Amino acid sequence: MEHTLRMTGSLYPREAWTAERCTLARALDVVSARSAFLILREAFYGTTRFDDFAHRAGISEPVTSRRLRELVDEGLLEREDYREPGQRTRQRYRLTDKGADLLPVLVALMQWGSRWLDDQGGPVELRHRGCGEPVAVQLTCAAGHIAGPDELDLAVHRRLQAHPR
Amino acid sequence: MEHTLRMTGSLYPREAWTAERCTLARALDVVSARSAFLILREAFYGTTRFDDFAHRAGISEPVTSRRLRELVDEGLLEREDYREPGQRTRQRYRLTDKGADLLPVLVALMQWGSRWLDDQGGPVELRHRGCGEPVAVQLTCAAGHIAGPDELDLAVHRRLQAHPR
Repeated sequence: MEHTLRMTGSLYPREAWTAERCTLARALDVVSARSAFLILREAFYGTTRFDDFAHRAGISEPVTSRRLRELVDEGLLEREDYREPGQRTRQRYRLTDKGADLLPVLVALMQWGSRWLDDQGGPVELRHRGCGEPVAVQLTCAAGHIAGPDELDLAVHRRLQAHPR
Repeated sequence: MEHTLRMTGSLYPREAWTAERCTLARALDVVSARSAFLILREAFYGTTRFDDFAHRAGISEPVTSRRLRELVDEGLLEREDYREPGQRTRQRYRLTDKGADLLPVLVALMQWGSRWLDDQGGPVELRHRGCGEPVAVQLTCAAGHIAGPDELDLAVHRRLQAHPR
C-alpha cells in the first residue's frame, strides 16, 4: 500500500510549490524538544510546581528551567505567584487554552508509542468519562466520517481558493 | 477552566507513581527532532529521493542523511534500490506501516499550528476524499463519542487491572 496523501488542485505535483507557510513546521518551531513534551504531559497530569516538573518528567533542573521559560514565553503555560500561609511566595504553572489545545498531539504520540513500541500496548489509557470507553485519536471529517489514511486529499485551504463565478 | 486530565484508580494522586514505561516518552525517543517530522511530512507528500527530501524540507544534506538513516533504523521508512533505464542505481525511501501510523501526530501538529500560529488558519487543509469535507484530529471514544478535553480520565490500562472475581 502507498502511504501518501493525494495532492489536489495546485498542490499537484509536489515539486511545483514550496511549503513556506507550513503550519506543521511553525508548530515544531514552538514545541519539538522531547523535554518540552514531557513537561506538557506533566501539566496535563496536574503538575504545577518547578520541582515536581523536573522530578516527574525526569529532566535536569537547568533544562526544566529553560523549557518552562520557553513554554511561558510562547503562551503555552502561564506562571502565577501563589503563597500558602506562613510560606514564601512561589510560582506555579498552568496550561493556557493554547497549551491545552496540544492535547491531541500528545495523545497521538502516546497512542503510536503504545501500538508500536510496547509489547503490551502501554501502561495507561484515556477513557471517556461519560461512558468509560477508551479514547483514541481519529481523523474525522466535518460530516462525521472517520477518514482512513488512504482517503485523504491535501488541498489549498478553501478560503484561499478563487470563488467560482 | 482547569486543563488537566482526571487521574483515576491507582493513578491518583500523581505523586504516588513514576511514568516509567510511558509510551509518549518512548515515542519521543524515536522521533522528536524537527527535521525528522519535516522528512516524514515530505514522505506523506510523496517525496522518495534524498535530494528532494533535503530541498523540500529545507534542511542541510548532512542532517537529511542522518535523519533518513535514523528513520530507516527505527523502521519508519524503508530504503530500496531502484534503477531507471540507462541510469545508475539509486535509493528511494518509502513510509512503512509503522511510519505511516504517525500521520495523526503530524495532522494534530499542523492543526494546532494553523489554529494558533497563522492569522489565516493555515495555507492547506486535508479533505475526506469520499465527501470533500475538511478533516480534523478528534479524540473519539470506542462508543463513537467525541470526547471533550474536560471529559477525559487517565486510567491504568484495563489489561493490567486485576480481574474482578
